[in-house]
Amino acid sequence: MSRNGAFISLEGIDGAGKTSLRELLIRGNYFDNIISIREPGGTYISEQIRAILLDARNTGMAPRTEALLYAAARSQVVEEIIRPALAQGQLVIADRYLDSTIAYQGYGRGLDLDFLIQLNHLCTGGLKPDLTLLLDIDPREGLRRRGEEKPDRLEQEGIIFQEKVRQGYLEIAAREPERVKVINAGREQSEVLAEAVEYLRELVGE
Amino acid sequence: MSRNGAFISLEGIDGAGKTSLRELLIRGNYFDNIISIREPGGTYISEQIRAILLDARNTGMAPRTEALLYAAARSQVVEEIIRPALAQGQLVIADRYLDSTIAYQGYGRGLDLDFLIQLNHLCTGGLKPDLTLLLDIDPREGLRRRGEEKPDRLEQEGIIFQEKVRQGYLEIAAREPERVKVINAGREQSEVLAEAVEYLRELVGE
Repeated sequence: MSRNGAFISLEGIDGAGKTSLRELLIRGNYFDNIISIREPGGTYISEQIRAILLDARNTGMAPRTEALLYAAARSQVVEEIIRPALAQGQLVIADRYLDSTIAYQGYGRGLDLDFLIQLNHLCTGGLKPDLTLLLDIDPREGLRRRGEEKPDRLEQEGIIFQEKVRQGYLEIAAREPERVKVINAGREQSEVLAEAVEYLRELVGE
Repeated sequence: MSRNGAFISLEGIDGAGKTSLRELLIRGNYFDNIISIREPGGTYISEQIRAILLDARNTGMAPRTEALLYAAARSQVVEEIIRPALAQGQLVIADRYLDSTIAYQGYGRGLDLDFLIQLNHLCTGGLKPDLTLLLDIDPREGLRRRGEEKPDRLEQEGIIFQEKVRQGYLEIAAREPERVKVINAGREQSEVLAEAVEYLRELVGE
């Protein structure tokens, strides 16, 4: 399948502002022919997989099962949406993609990184983003933005987890500086947006 | 996790008699402390995955998605049932396991064998059966046993598919003769059972 479009992923911990940035990029009409997706879900099949992942009764889910289900949902989105869109020359913006798996399930939960890297490769057939914008933010600031002022004990554990994930993201960015651009997401939204638009313009040459 | 039990898988094309053999092995009280499983399914989570795989509306399922969903279901069965049973010294008999993936999705449907071998390794953490009994039968005989006398055009295509799967199984057996024992399943059920019991006795030393 030929590939003329461009593929951008947005990454970062919870509360970093990925969803807001995605909406601003689309609403602002900065680029033509744009399509956005959000994992997991986005296709009839991957929504069914998402329901299993979110079902609170599934507390006994093995970590590898969880990783494989995310991979299955992603595989369907890649085949059904991303590849066809790229072949038609569209600009695809994904809210989370491969790096989320490595950062959350690898660095955050401690699953074997080689396992996850292989799984990522298998489920996408090797399709990587052309550009990844990593919205980097202090986990306490991320939590505050989600409306939680004073973290209690459980939220405190959440902060330690998010900090592991954040460090994982930064290691990925250090290993692949050409693909992954770190954006300081602790600033005003307009500054974050301006920097994101600049990176996208460099990529698509508009 | 220590491992004291023994793990046996039954393989073969549709109609080869795996389910009947499994039931005879259990009902015949040849071995103590036996547990049997059937893929996909067998746990609350893997039954949910099975429902997605069998949902007739999911016609657009990408082959890789399908393979990943089977892997996710298997991963859960391995963690939730097979490993604990082996640790308790049980004899585990699985109706289909790793070789089904290679034979059906690889040889039958043409998915990349390296992809499937890696996926199998990932979803099981490398847990292979100690012994695999391959029930080998002519696809026409298998079809006849399932009550279909004269194959029509679609069933004829089915025979060609099953023949590819059968050849795949035989190649696996040729590569791993220590693990995979081929049993001629075109004979009387009592003869097939006797040969299977003999292989199991050799393995568990009863």
